[in-house]
Formats: sequence, structure tokens, C-alpha cells
Amino acid sequence: MKLSTIRTAAGTRAVRLDGDRLVDLGYPDLGALLAEPDWRDKAVGGSGAVHDLDGADFAPVVPNPSKVICVGHNYSNHIKEMGRELPAYPTLFPKFADSLIGAHDDIVKPAETDALDWEVELAVVIGAEVRRADDAQAEAAIAGFTVMNDVSVRDWQFRTIEWTQGKIWDSSTPVGPYLVTPDEVGGVRPALRVRTVVDGAEMQSDDTGTLLFDPVFLVKYISTIITLRPGDLIATGTPAGVGHARDPKVYLTGGETVVTEVDGIGACTNRVVKDA
Amino acid sequence: MKLSTIRTAAGTRAVRLDGDRLVDLGYPDLGALLAEPDWRDKAVGGSGAVHDLDGADFAPVVPNPSKVICVGHNYSNHIKEMGRELPAYPTLFPKFADSLIGAHDDIVKPAETDALDWEVELAVVIGAEVRRADDAQAEAAIAGFTVMNDVSVRDWQFRTIEWTQGKIWDSSTPVGPYLVTPDEVGGVRPALRVRTVVDGAEMQSDDTGTLLFDPVFLVKYISTIITLRPGDLIATGTPAGVGHARDPKVYLTGGETVVTEVDGIGACTNRVVKDA
Repeated sequence: MKLSTIRTAAGTRAVRLDGDRLVDLGYPDLGALLAEPDWRDKAVGGSGAVHDLDGADFAPVVPNPSKVICVGHNYSNHIKEMGRELPAYPTLFPKFADSLIGAHDDIVKPAETDALDWEVELAVVIGAEVRRADDAQAEAAIAGFTVMNDVSVRDWQFRTIEWTQGKIWDSSTPVGPYLVTPDEVGGVRPALRVRTVVDGAEMQSDDTGTLLFDPVFLVKYISTIITLRPGDLIATGTPAGVGHARDPKVYLTGGETVVTEVDGIGACTNRVVKDA
Repeated sequence: MKLSTIRTAAGTRAVRLDGDRLVDLGYPDLGALLAEPDWRDKAVGGSGAVHDLDGADFAPVVPNPSKVICVGHNYSNHIKEMGRELPAYPTLFPKFADSLIGAHDDIVKPAETDALDWEVELAVVIGAEVRRADDAQAEAAIAGFTVMNDVSVRDWQFRTIEWTQGKIWDSSTPVGPYLVTPDEVGGVRPALRVRTVVDGAEMQSDDTGTLLFDPVFLVKYISTIITLRPGDLIATGTPAGVGHARDPKVYLTGGETVVTEVDGIGACTNRVVKDA
């Protein structure tokens, strides 16, 4: 099952993909749907108005999560390219709801940076409230997966020892277009090809099956620290091939088309435009 | 003017302190009040039900901010005790709404840590939506100030190079009891004594007038990165005297009473209890 949040003239709507149609599920967005304990039944059975898939305007797959937790250093190849050792614990950093954009929205390069970079990530969408989840609770709390491009402002990221200020830029981070339920991708620890393509050139490619800390582990680990709520997002980290780690470094300057994709989940396709 | 959010049998309520009475302002919490463009008029003129100050149950002063941004390394004495040089930029890290508790709530020491620490902070409460604020916009966007105890889980904070996982623990962080408007404390760059007292012993004491990055600067800097919204919180950093920097180190183990106070603003007074 593939679910999404689209923008319509009447505001955002939660929808289910049926072939080439988007069926309205009666909720303003996926966050509101996922807050229902029986959201799976409501998603399967929903049969409201039909929206055209062709020309659909995708909002962030969850427009207003209470928290977005991102993981750094989770693919061994990316850890090596950044010159680090394999970690004992996941590295966590934040985004906020205001950081998110839709899967096809423009990425606006802020005038304040000349070091804008891509990071394709498999993202977990939470479907139940959990704290200190055990394995079974963590598995059950995974509503599904989506794609995030963890767009990063590298010069600000490295101004201090904390990455936050390079990671939370307003309207910087495509997420979507679909929440895909685990049954469609082989379960809650899927092994899927992830890749970034910039103007036709493949820049990142790896397999989510090689994550050091898998989705279930991350739900357990993060929920030890803080309650995870329906609609919350966990971005599981990016593989090797970011622009900042290249020699010479490559950054997004405006005019590029960036495709971040996870096989079986979907793709964010975004033009990069300069801030006015 | 002193405003607050209290818990009542009918849910949380935004209130104004009038002598020894709390006057209901007709909003469920200060976040909802601050979202009104004319919130100052509504706060001054509100005249709903009266709640007793005696025995009032304070919620987080804003229970559900869209973002909480904390600043590290902002008092020169604390920077020196941590062995660092004066920074060119503020260090930013997050909390989430789920991290917050009321000014008199218990601080529950998680079973997963033996390194729980205090950090008194002057916190800015945002009263207007701003992005890339100039000086005048930043000053106008400061609704007022409150007190935060940026309770920190030091062992988790230093598991990786990113502090986030030591800073966002659920229900860890007292904030309140009052939002105090700038006119009561000498303006938007107040010089106020901050202190932490643990079981009667003063552990931190400094002056907010010595902040390297003052509240107006921080609103400008952070709003360059991301939209600040009414109710958002900026914690301006902590002075020297945290338990982790002492020799020998001192941590909260359960049973202590911690008072974090800013003169003219108020105090959070919290018992530390062990997780069951």
C-alpha cells in the first residue's frame, strides 16, 4: 500500500495510490490518518473523492511531524569517505517540520550558502506512539518507509561542532512522495537500492540492507530517549557520494535537477533554484 | 506582565499573573495566545475566570512549540571550564516539545543514565513569525523571557560527536513558570543574575548581560536558518558550574531539589526522582 499527502485547492489531503488514481482517505494529511489506532483499516478501506495522479502536487509525506530525527554515519562506505571509524552508537541530529518540502518542490538554495549538498536517505514513518519499545513494539510502530533528501548546508554545518544549523534550513528537505508499507518492500529491515542522480549523473548508490543500525534498532534506540509519535520521521542516514566528500567538492549552485530514489519506495525529483 | 500556562481540571489554560491571582485569558495555552497578532492587547485586557496562584500546577510555559533551539558555549566562563576558545558563531542544538516539563514538575532520572546534569538558562519566547529578521524585527519578535533548566544526559550526549541524544530526553526539561515581558526586565538584552542551587548549594551563577550572543542576535541568526514561530523557544546557553565540569564530577542521582533561577524572571524548582 502506498499512501501520500497531496495539496489540493481545499488544502492538503491524505490519499491512497490505486493504479493511476489517488483516493481521498478523509483526513487532511497522513499525520492525522496515522494518529488513528486503526489507520491501516482506514487506509485500506477509504473510498472518498478521486484525485488525478497526473499533475498531483505532493506535500511533505507528513507535513507536521512532532519530530524528525536523522541518523549520521550509518553506511560503512560513507563513514570511510568521511574518514571515520565504525561507531558503537548511532549519531543523531534533528530537523523540524519547517525544514520539509514536497517530493517535487523546488529546493531553494539560500543566498547565505555556497555549499549546498544532497544526501539520499531511506526514512521511517512512525505509525504508533512508542517509548522504550522492545523489538516487537518497534516493528509494529513502523508504518512504512519513504524517501528523504537530507539537503545539507555544509558551511553552516561545520561552523561549530554541532551539525544542527546546517541541517534544519527552512523548506530545504524533500520527503515523499509515498509512504510505502513494509509488506511491499520485504519487511521492516528492507534491502533496497538507494541512489542520488544529479543532472543524469549517479552520485550515490548503496543498499539499505547494509545499514549499520537498521530501522527496528533505530526505533528502539530513539524511543529509549523520547516518545515517538504517529507521523514522526527517522531518516536512516546517507551512503557515500555526497558532494562535500568529493575531490574536488561538488555543491548545488542552482539549475540542477536532483533525483533521490529508493527502489520500491519512490523518488524525490527536485529542481535547485537560487533564492531571489 | 507575567504570563503562564497552567494545568486545570479542564485542561491547560493561558493566564496572566495579577498579584496572587492567575487570570484566565481565554486560550488553552500561551502558544495559542501568542499566535494572535494582537496577543499583547489580549493578554493585558483578558479578564476571564480567576485561578488561585497558591497550588497552581504549571505546564511548560509553552507546551507545544514548533521548535526549541538551544545555544551552547555562550558564557565565557562556561566556555573556559569546558576547555574551549571563544566561538565565532553560536553552537545550536535541539530539543522537542516532548522534552519539556513544567516549572515544578519532577525531573525523572532515566534508568539508562548515571550522568544527569543541570544547566540554568535564560530562554527567549518568540511572539511573532519571523524569517531573516533584521534588528527591529528580531526585537519585536521577542515576546519575553522565561527560565529553562536544560537538563542533560551527559553519557548519551558524548556517545557521539552530536549532542542531540543527550539533550532531547522525554519530559526532562523544566521551562517556566512565567513568560515575563521585556519591559519588566530592562528590555530585550537583559542583564540578570542566573543561578542554579542544588539542595541549597549554589552551583552556577552568572549575568545574562555577559552572553556572547545576545537574544536579539540569536533571533536574527536562527531566523536566517529557519522560520521562528509564536511560542518557539530559544535557550540562550548556560554559565559555568555544571556538574559534568566539576572535579570530581557531580551528577543528579535522585532525591535532590534543583532550583534554576533568573532574577526578575522566576525559578524552576524541581525534585529529582528515580525512574521506577
